[in-house]
Amino acid sequence: MTTWQTYLDENQAQFTEELLDFLRIPSISSLSEHMPDIRRAAEWVADRCRTAGMENVAVLETGAHPVVYADWLHAGDAPVILVYGHYDVQPVDPLPLWNNPPFDPTIIDDRVYARGANDDKGNMLPPILAVEALLQTEGALPVNVKFFFEGQEEIGSPNLPDFLTRHREMFRCDMVISADGGQWSEDQPALMIGLRGLAGLEIDVTGPDHDVHSGSYGGAIQNPIHALAALLASMRSADGKILVDGFYADVQDLTPEDRARIDAIDFDEAQFLAGVNVDAAFGEPGYTTLERRWARPTLEVNGMWGGFQGEGSKTVLPSTAHAKITCRLVADQNPVEIIECITAHIEQHAPPGVRVTVRPGESVAKPYLMPADHPGNQAARDVHLQLYGKEPFYARSGGSIPFCSLFYDALGVYTVNFAFALSDERQHSPNEFFRLHNFRRGQRAYAMLFQRLAEEDA
Amino acid sequence: MTTWQTYLDENQAQFTEELLDFLRIPSISSLSEHMPDIRRAAEWVADRCRTAGMENVAVLETGAHPVVYADWLHAGDAPVILVYGHYDVQPVDPLPLWNNPPFDPTIIDDRVYARGANDDKGNMLPPILAVEALLQTEGALPVNVKFFFEGQEEIGSPNLPDFLTRHREMFRCDMVISADGGQWSEDQPALMIGLRGLAGLEIDVTGPDHDVHSGSYGGAIQNPIHALAALLASMRSADGKILVDGFYADVQDLTPEDRARIDAIDFDEAQFLAGVNVDAAFGEPGYTTLERRWARPTLEVNGMWGGFQGEGSKTVLPSTAHAKITCRLVADQNPVEIIECITAHIEQHAPPGVRVTVRPGESVAKPYLMPADHPGNQAARDVHLQLYGKEPFYARSGGSIPFCSLFYDALGVYTVNFAFALSDERQHSPNEFFRLHNFRRGQRAYAMLFQRLAEEDA
Repeated sequence: MTTWQTYLDENQAQFTEELLDFLRIPSISSLSEHMPDIRRAAEWVADRCRTAGMENVAVLETGAHPVVYADWLHAGDAPVILVYGHYDVQPVDPLPLWNNPPFDPTIIDDRVYARGANDDKGNMLPPILAVEALLQTEGALPVNVKFFFEGQEEIGSPNLPDFLTRHREMFRCDMVISADGGQWSEDQPALMIGLRGLAGLEIDVTGPDHDVHSGSYGGAIQNPIHALAALLASMRSADGKILVDGFYADVQDLTPEDRARIDAIDFDEAQFLAGVNVDAAFGEPGYTTLERRWARPTLEVNGMWGGFQGEGSKTVLPSTAHAKITCRLVADQNPVEIIECITAHIEQHAPPGVRVTVRPGESVAKPYLMPADHPGNQAARDVHLQLYGKEPFYARSGGSIPFCSLFYDALGVYTVNFAFALSDERQHSPNEFFRLHNFRRGQRAYAMLFQRLAEEDA
Repeated sequence: MTTWQTYLDENQAQFTEELLDFLRIPSISSLSEHMPDIRRAAEWVADRCRTAGMENVAVLETGAHPVVYADWLHAGDAPVILVYGHYDVQPVDPLPLWNNPPFDPTIIDDRVYARGANDDKGNMLPPILAVEALLQTEGALPVNVKFFFEGQEEIGSPNLPDFLTRHREMFRCDMVISADGGQWSEDQPALMIGLRGLAGLEIDVTGPDHDVHSGSYGGAIQNPIHALAALLASMRSADGKILVDGFYADVQDLTPEDRARIDAIDFDEAQFLAGVNVDAAFGEPGYTTLERRWARPTLEVNGMWGGFQGEGSKTVLPSTAHAKITCRLVADQNPVEIIECITAHIEQHAPPGVRVTVRPGESVAKPYLMPADHPGNQAARDVHLQLYGKEPFYARSGGSIPFCSLFYDALGVYTVNFAFALSDERQHSPNEFFRLHNFRRGQRAYAMLFQRLAEEDA
């Protein structure tokens, strides 16, 4: 009898060819000339879902790049699992740095090189293939499955919030499993339980209506750069604590368990610092570097400028000075409230003699934190233990990925990270690649995960 | 009998023609293609000195643009007066903004429009003409006179310190009278008794060796912009006092007499601020705006930059941040020592986790302050009282003009400002002009000044 395992093994050559076909579609979501390719990729995914045996396959309009939906809902009371992935890819420039054309996938040493190989085509195809293997060999899936493959992840999923809200019933599920993400290393699995959010603003400080002579005006009027420097300095203590009133008010303190989970992680701080040629860590007192990166909020100046930047000297007081700030947020900080706190701080501390204005930034993301012992994590942990022979790390990311909190807000469910990218695979860069043995591992892992999830109460 | 007064009157048409000839020479000192014009202007000045009756006329090599020297030293024990001026001019760009070609002088409403009309050809010709009038009508000058007309004022007189030191004996004098400068207004004379000095430096702050992701590194390493902002903020109190140790140590306090002289000046602060669209003055507590501009030192950030400055948001921690600072200095601050104080402050306050380096700037000028009751000022005051019917203001400049302290250092004598430019005459800008009635007033004024100075003990 053919098992799903042998089905996967026997069809692997064809699945690899299909991955190469998928990678040949230049589905770059940010470039309008690739709109037809985005459509082509969506249709390719829809067809592949049909072939796999999924039902109600549809290419759904979002107002921009479509979402591919499919389901198989004959598992009765078993949980409903929504699998997320994206078929769009990043642009390819700088093209001259690619060793092979980015949309002419090339296999070298069991790695496939192409734009999208790692992010996310090589990761989103395995759940489809796992479903096929289960349906072909067992005639049914152990859980109810919905597929949700979007085409605008690389442009920040602008239409997703509205779209999810409009189709809330269609996407109703017990949890989301994300096939976009990765593992800690080749032999170390990880569960991603937290993501930082994002909020930003720009400060404009205006003094005289043009750059003025520092001999005539120096000492007599406020200098916008000095005013802005004082304002920025007022926001942070010398040792790195944010001094904005209310900034930490909604932050979930790390529990002893949280700290133990982070401490269990094999993090080489010296290597982390040496990688960017920095001598010493620096940050909020009372926390380890990994805690600061994952579980504490930040307020960072991304850019600042004003006055003369050329060679030599120009004896002026500048007319204006500017700073761009973004904050990484953690649960349960609210981006809108954080911007309000900072704006109030700026108003209170605005130096005399200049006009200070604040413009909230457009990029906003809520922080995301899920229970480490969420049933989806427990199931994923069991699969990882079998596949890797190791307990997974309970990791977080210092970065911000909007879709986890988007799903939480729209559907009220958490997203379990279950994907097999590795951080050295040049995601978003020239010569992006994906290890084919992780492509194969992903297929087995999804079949195992569906089976393990059937043991959970719906 | 012809007096010097009638001589000037009778020859005024010709003198004006000569000024136009002088203005036709495009003696731009900063542009190498105008080297021949610089030479031509120097020869023109030398010839004009000979015609006026000056002796020992020489075009002296400095290593770059020459100095024109001439003397008349037959006044026995009367003081030796060295008259300073410069025959070089600023560049003319942007050329399209000129209503008439800059080296095709045009007279409209008794004003001559040309590059150099105000700065300094229209001001340096009058002392030559005054000497001619006195020699032609009285056969002698009442004082000993040396002329010193340089050709590199507009490029910062780089060869002057060496040149003055080498020819110290030739230029020995009791005082310098500068024919480069101006008056307070059309009907208000002024004596310039102080100039601020200049010292500058650049600060470079380096963190990670490239801009890094604020999700991965934010909160974990020092941010170079925030570090630099804190450093700049540490240099100045919120109300504008410089907090660098030793910064004010050598500053000459304002005496009650100094303050009274400054207070006597008709300074419209509201207009000063409105002119640059600033709502309120700002500066070191305990001083008026004019005192801050003229008699107190400054530390001003001329430019600062780091990180992302484009449209929208880029969530990076920058690799570097930079600031350019210049200080305006007052007597008796020493530029070198001030740079040392600031460097020591930066070393003491350098935030952790970044590398901070300081580079002293190249532009340096000592502050200059002369006694208000210097004999040259007393003589000039008497002449102004006769010409304007008003006591002069005892003014200072917030800017920095190196030659006063250069002469003081090399020759041990003070420089008396005695020139007739006005601040609305577009010095250094398109459509520079000079009022011809001040060209005529300057000639009379110099003759009167020479006579008045003869009453001083040498």
